[in-house]
Amino acid sequence: MTSALTWNRYGKSSIRLVKVRRAADPHDIIDLTIDVALEGAFDRVYTDGDNSGCLATDTMKNTVYAFAKVEPLDHVESFAVKLAEHFSEKPGVSLVRIDVDEHPWTRLHPHAFARTGEEVRTTLVTYKDDTPSVVSGLRGLVVLKTTDSAFSGFPRDQFTTLRDTRDRILATSITAAWTYADGFEDFAQRTAVRAAIVETFAAHKSESVQQTLYAMGEAALTSCSGVVDVQLSLPNRHHLLVDLSPFGLDNPNEIFVATDQPYGLIEARISRK
Amino acid sequence: MTSALTWNRYGKSSIRLVKVRRAADPHDIIDLTIDVALEGAFDRVYTDGDNSGCLATDTMKNTVYAFAKVEPLDHVESFAVKLAEHFSEKPGVSLVRIDVDEHPWTRLHPHAFARTGEEVRTTLVTYKDDTPSVVSGLRGLVVLKTTDSAFSGFPRDQFTTLRDTRDRILATSITAAWTYADGFEDFAQRTAVRAAIVETFAAHKSESVQQTLYAMGEAALTSCSGVVDVQLSLPNRHHLLVDLSPFGLDNPNEIFVATDQPYGLIEARISRK
Amino acid sequence: MTSALTWNRYGKSSIRLVKVRRAADPHDIIDLTIDVALEGAFDRVYTDGDNSGCLATDTMKNTVYAFAKVEPLDHVESFAVKLAEHFSEKPGVSLVRIDVDEHPWTRLHPHAFARTGEEVRTTLVTYKDDTPSVVSGLRGLVVLKTTDSAFSGFPRDQFTTLRDTRDRILATSITAAWTYADGFEDFAQRTAVRAAIVETFAAHKSESVQQTLYAMGEAALTSCSGVVDVQLSLPNRHHLLVDLSPFGLDNPNEIFVATDQPYGLIEARISRK
Amino acid sequence: MTSALTWNRYGKSSIRLVKVRRAADPHDIIDLTIDVALEGAFDRVYTDGDNSGCLATDTMKNTVYAFAKVEPLDHVESFAVKLAEHFSEKPGVSLVRIDVDEHPWTRLHPHAFARTGEEVRTTLVTYKDDTPSVVSGLRGLVVLKTTDSAFSGFPRDQFTTLRDTRDRILATSITAAWTYADGFEDFAQRTAVRAAIVETFAAHKSESVQQTLYAMGEAALTSCSGVVDVQLSLPNRHHLLVDLSPFGLDNPNEIFVATDQPYGLIEARISRK
Repeated sequence: MTSALTWNRYGKSSIRLVKVRRAADPHDIIDLTIDVALEGAFDRVYTDGDNSGCLATDTMKNTVYAFAKVEPLDHVESFAVKLAEHFSEKPGVSLVRIDVDEHPWTRLHPHAFARTGEEVRTTLVTYKDDTPSVVSGLRGLVVLKTTDSAFSGFPRDQFTTLRDTRDRILATSITAAWTYADGFEDFAQRTAVRAAIVETFAAHKSESVQQTLYAMGEAALTSCSGVVDVQLSLPNRHHLLVDLSPFGLDNPNEIFVATDQPYGLIEARISRK
Repeated sequence: MTSALTWNRYGKSSIRLVKVRRAADPHDIIDLTIDVALEGAFDRVYTDGDNSGCLATDTMKNTVYAFAKVEPLDHVESFAVKLAEHFSEKPGVSLVRIDVDEHPWTRLHPHAFARTGEEVRTTLVTYKDDTPSVVSGLRGLVVLKTTDSAFSGFPRDQFTTLRDTRDRILATSITAAWTYADGFEDFAQRTAVRAAIVETFAAHKSESVQQTLYAMGEAALTSCSGVVDVQLSLPNRHHLLVDLSPFGLDNPNEIFVATDQPYGLIEARISRK
Repeated sequence: MTSALTWNRYGKSSIRLVKVRRAADPHDIIDLTIDVALEGAFDRVYTDGDNSGCLATDTMKNTVYAFAKVEPLDHVESFAVKLAEHFSEKPGVSLVRIDVDEHPWTRLHPHAFARTGEEVRTTLVTYKDDTPSVVSGLRGLVVLKTTDSAFSGFPRDQFTTLRDTRDRILATSITAAWTYADGFEDFAQRTAVRAAIVETFAAHKSESVQQTLYAMGEAALTSCSGVVDVQLSLPNRHHLLVDLSPFGLDNPNEIFVATDQPYGLIEARISRK
Repeated sequence: MTSALTWNRYGKSSIRLVKVRRAADPHDIIDLTIDVALEGAFDRVYTDGDNSGCLATDTMKNTVYAFAKVEPLDHVESFAVKLAEHFSEKPGVSLVRIDVDEHPWTRLHPHAFARTGEEVRTTLVTYKDDTPSVVSGLRGLVVLKTTDSAFSGFPRDQFTTLRDTRDRILATSITAAWTYADGFEDFAQRTAVRAAIVETFAAHKSESVQQTLYAMGEAALTSCSGVVDVQLSLPNRHHLLVDLSPFGLDNPNEIFVATDQPYGLIEARISRK
């Protein structure tokens, strides 16, 4: 044969990890996306289909979650070094890369956080029959609460497998749009409406996304008498608890996978009577 | 209270579904992204936190997968109507929306498919010391095979939970870049190199992504004597078998969730000796 | 000072270039995104703010467009080598990188092309009062015609600077959604409706996007008697003619910049009477 | 003919507008993306190719820029109402939509701003020969300065059209990665390094992106003795001055188009001697 393997690297990319530190009060969260990659003497995997030396990338992922439970994660750098040391001891490995993106959150409340920087402020004017209608709003305000969110008591049919929970992470990207009464012009009220929406998200004892949405809408109406209705759209960005029991570890609502797909989507309009 | 719920809708969005029809030869695949949404008399969910009438969005997702197993899926339209009928019978529902994106695939081989349209052809010239070096390639060529892919015999440590499989879906987005020998100018050979890479993906009996990658690299070198090395990068776009047993259905490699994160990433360079 | 410049590179990225070869019949198009980057002895630019040796990245962009007019562009590789040679002769340059993405188009017609691979087939079922309503459609079908598109005779006010044109590139990403009559179930008609839309785009002598949109809608209604209305959304992906006169070159509708922002957006619904 | 136009809307989307208010000290910026759309009696444009009533979408864009110069833009809502009123007076118009996204910036300095929320903190550990190498960094920190940025004195060849400028907007998305000395473990220094980079961007009197990059790199090295080198990548997000002279308005560095493509890209590594 006239060809040769002259370089190789493999691993698991985009491992999404959210850790909630509940021992502390207020809670802390760490939100990471991690790539693990190994270089080394893996030639027979490529040339002979011999997997006996090929650590599965699924195992790399599991290792990251198990280490996240045990390590303090005070500095991402130290956590990455620990992971790298672990993988460097595997047979054949000559180089380990641990590549981490940390997504920073700003505290809103002892148990709630925001990624405010992705937020866009929206304005929609429609003009018809010589009259403008003004809708102000926001989009992309990502918020998360580490507790005070439940979902239970829902109906069960032949396709239901979800279990009741009394304590889960609730995360969403808020889209809100509120309509001002005709002739209203105190557009600086945007700030008060936004604050009411965000503070209600943070403080609400949630039985469902729907109930929290409704409370957010009511708070928006209360915050500004010039608002006649508010429409909210809340995608439920599911955070799934990782099962660490195969590794002899418990997971009391600490280690989660943040997922993009699928997502619940809850939308409603709340109007002043 | 001065506010009222004047409109509401909720559901599950971005349910990713891939169905392989294996009864047929050659195999067929259907690749869908589905949103389910309900409108109706769900006011008490919002205003009272009473979930007794709130079909869980997780249940909607399960329902889609179970129906995908049972229904022929000859037309997406008919499948969507069946789903809509099912959800319309749930208490309180006044309107159902089933919104489907179908991602089309082109057949490459009896058991392999491509989404060729996302492909970009790449060229990188570096010029140094009066000499150009020419690298041609491609990016974003998404391919999938419904069989002839296994992954077994890998080492097991305390963090390994993945089971051996002798038959799985293998899907990837090919990035390839091949370097021509100095002075080579027959750039129309791009077509032959690309064909060798794609045909090898389709026909290879794969023990791992690594082994298929190596075979693709060898084929590229063989296809054009002016190529001195080829670098390949193959993200493993995992397709996870859906567990339909809670619904009394088996799933003999037919119904899959296509996932984006995390993904394996296998990279190597194969050189002419 | 204790610090030193130990590596540097600069250039222009994402230069969008579309060339129409009109001499040939049928027309050909080449659609490229080009990055130019230089390494070399540019230290004084960094350390002293001395720009006397710093070829402007704007000049690099102009150079690419001028070369695109003069060079045949039969192979992207040869074009990239020519550009690299040119830049390698500039003072201080030790290494040139020319990095090109080619976006392939499929011919529809002697003067029209498609990027069919980005297309998604859509289905929307709404179910209400025991009756399904079925809307089929498509999204992301990118098409371009190199001639038979004009825009002239529009009104001029104090803010109008656009000149009339009788020959321009027309490019769009088609979103179409057609509603079937209640009870219609011959969903295989999707193919005929799509063909009517695409063929009309290709063959229409266009006075405006609006007029072409209307013709596409009429053709969709004609193609399938079960369709009661069709809604079309056509973003106008503007291709701007590059002014090559500063370089002593004419540009008879051959060299264009493809732009993303801003874009015209034309939407309408055409219904069966 | 059996078909009819039953709804229509058209306009210009994604009009990018940045306004600098220089009269104030400190400077203010407003960063908007605007969609204009009209509904009305435009049937003959669609059915007859008669453009005599079709206000060009290019004219809509020009109108937005001209209004942005004249209007105070204290509230986006009031600005949108003014635009809507203007377009509502055009012949045939029955409804105007003005849809605006405002991209918020945080002040860094009297003349500099950041969009900190898009920032990701990065960590790369490579482990080889029993030794970890730790690189910390950041990505996606978008910053802009409204003055103290020049680019002049660059060489001119046959393809140069860019004019010298002594005052321009400088905007970039910072990617930085700094390598710590072996054994360094005081990873909390990340904060000091980041601050040095950002403050230097804001305060530097810039002759070029290159010179500012070098100053940022030097500041990073100075801020933390454990850093041995720093690599910076600075895309130049060009803000182009809008020519308002056709509308009888001057534009003393106030009204800009923010562009994505093409962009300059300046990269270098600065090392401790």
